[in-house]
Amino acid sequence: METNFNVTAQAELRKLVAYQRVATALAHPNIAFIKYWGNQDDRLRLPANPSLSMNLGCLYTLTTVSFDDGLSSDLLLINEVPIYGAALARVSAMLNWVREKANLTTAAKIESVSNFPIGSGIASSAAAFAALSVASSAAAGLDLSEAAVSQLARRGSGSASRSVPTGYSEWVMGDDETSVARSLAPPEFWDLRDIIVVVNQEHKAVGSTGGHALAKTSSLQAARLVGAINRFQLCRESLLARDLATMGPIIEEDAIIMHAVMMSSHPPIYYWDATTMMIIQAVQQWRREGLPVYFTIDAGPNVHLICEAKDAETVMVQARQLPNIESVMSSDVGGPAMLID
Amino acid sequence: METNFNVTAQAELRKLVAYQRVATALAHPNIAFIKYWGNQDDRLRLPANPSLSMNLGCLYTLTTVSFDDGLSSDLLLINEVPIYGAALARVSAMLNWVREKANLTTAAKIESVSNFPIGSGIASSAAAFAALSVASSAAAGLDLSEAAVSQLARRGSGSASRSVPTGYSEWVMGDDETSVARSLAPPEFWDLRDIIVVVNQEHKAVGSTGGHALAKTSSLQAARLVGAINRFQLCRESLLARDLATMGPIIEEDAIIMHAVMMSSHPPIYYWDATTMMIIQAVQQWRREGLPVYFTIDAGPNVHLICEAKDAETVMVQARQLPNIESVMSSDVGGPAMLID
Repeated sequence: METNFNVTAQAELRKLVAYQRVATALAHPNIAFIKYWGNQDDRLRLPANPSLSMNLGCLYTLTTVSFDDGLSSDLLLINEVPIYGAALARVSAMLNWVREKANLTTAAKIESVSNFPIGSGIASSAAAFAALSVASSAAAGLDLSEAAVSQLARRGSGSASRSVPTGYSEWVMGDDETSVARSLAPPEFWDLRDIIVVVNQEHKAVGSTGGHALAKTSSLQAARLVGAINRFQLCRESLLARDLATMGPIIEEDAIIMHAVMMSSHPPIYYWDATTMMIIQAVQQWRREGLPVYFTIDAGPNVHLICEAKDAETVMVQARQLPNIESVMSSDVGGPAMLID
Repeated sequence: METNFNVTAQAELRKLVAYQRVATALAHPNIAFIKYWGNQDDRLRLPANPSLSMNLGCLYTLTTVSFDDGLSSDLLLINEVPIYGAALARVSAMLNWVREKANLTTAAKIESVSNFPIGSGIASSAAAFAALSVASSAAAGLDLSEAAVSQLARRGSGSASRSVPTGYSEWVMGDDETSVARSLAPPEFWDLRDIIVVVNQEHKAVGSTGGHALAKTSSLQAARLVGAINRFQLCRESLLARDLATMGPIIEEDAIIMHAVMMSSHPPIYYWDATTMMIIQAVQQWRREGLPVYFTIDAGPNVHLICEAKDAETVMVQARQLPNIESVMSSDVGGPAMLID
């Protein structure tokens, strides 16, 4: 009996410990309306300007973190493929923050799967590090506030901070404690859509971590930072007024200016290709024809078409008729990063 | 006898008067290495930054100005087609300056022909107003210095000031008297080539006079002006050292930054199309493969490929293989605007 009791208790205990040591989280990538480009502090990823974004509800990354005494070092699996080198080191650095806070020394297995192509200019690292922040802190038994999770996500990948809160997020400047993202409005506030035109990528792009470090070598970056504060305020106000006719030109200008900084960095970074420029021209033509749709472009050649739900079908049909494109995806506004298991 | 003498004297006099009243001049367009975009004074076209260019020897405009008492108003023929409206008004405004200086009130016939397509993003107005300045001042009997002709040309079209001196020209900032162009080096100083890739232009561009007025609406223009002074100095030094490896990246950056200002103006102006961007990417690829060629782009979709004479044939062959282009032209360095008849 006593033996049996002990066995049962140990099993219960093991279950409890196991519960705390494994967690799965889901997070969405986000598309920035006001871009993040350049840091005040590269290590902590404290941004040089405030930014504002929309979570992409139809796209997600699922990440499971399992702290396991049987592992001698962290093990990373992305879409079931073991990953080593710089990507693993970046994930381990984030886990080290969690382990330090939780007083843990155990290595972890990190399994991450996404329903969208990674490294294609859709902010895969934002979804990945937001999901990792939620999963790793929960698995380590930490009970963090949303702000603390956003802070943790930011340290892993700046824009990941914005994938933590729900719907539309703003990420403010500040120090390690205060530079976090918070929700401006939930998804149901405004049913915007992001029609993502995926461009066949012939040219290998520069990773955005390296790009951020180059931002200050552009003679336009200082002017971009001053202007970004104005654009952030105008974008925030027009978003809260659900005023796309005002917001659209601001997000286009912000994207253009970020790419101007990229193309005038030393060395320059050209993320656009012929198809990107063709789509920029097409969007303006569609608008002259009465379709209210605006473009934005992240650190890659893909173009994001922002419109209201009522126009999404028309924009999709138009986008699919463009030559030289690989695919067209549509997404509504997404919720927060969250623990799902 | 007396009658005969009078007839002869009158004929001689008429010949002399006719000689003074008709003149033909030739001028080349120029391609700017450091761009002119935005004025300190829009009416006098006093530029907001110094600029630097190369005359294009293989392209030219021929202009004949005939002051004719039989005309009631100025008559403009471009490639044998009578032109009215804004273009005629701009030419007449320039002739008014000449007439005022020469104490003339006579109207003139202005006949202009070019050996390159006008309004295609090759600076046709630069060649046109440089030729017009030389021809009209000569026809009016004025004997102007090169600086005075450059000043006159500048009032008609800013960049025309740079088509007046020979070879490579610099156009400095200043007031109406001092903001003129002068030659930095003659054509034989450095045998550069401009391989002009003419892009099929689907989108009607904004004329550059309107664009200059918009420059100050871009939040990047102030930074462009500060940077342009640095780039002008670096470009000038590397040109005088015949150092293309140093000069090339500067001219590319300067072109990119001018287009960044255009694309971030209110309203934005997009001169690039898909083919423009494809060529920007191609040039970088060719350079990675060892071909020393650099791009620059004026207010249009065409791309100018700058290289040394030794590489011109290879660049031409590469350029002609690009898809979606209309034609490829090559030009060497041109001489000054000059009176030819």
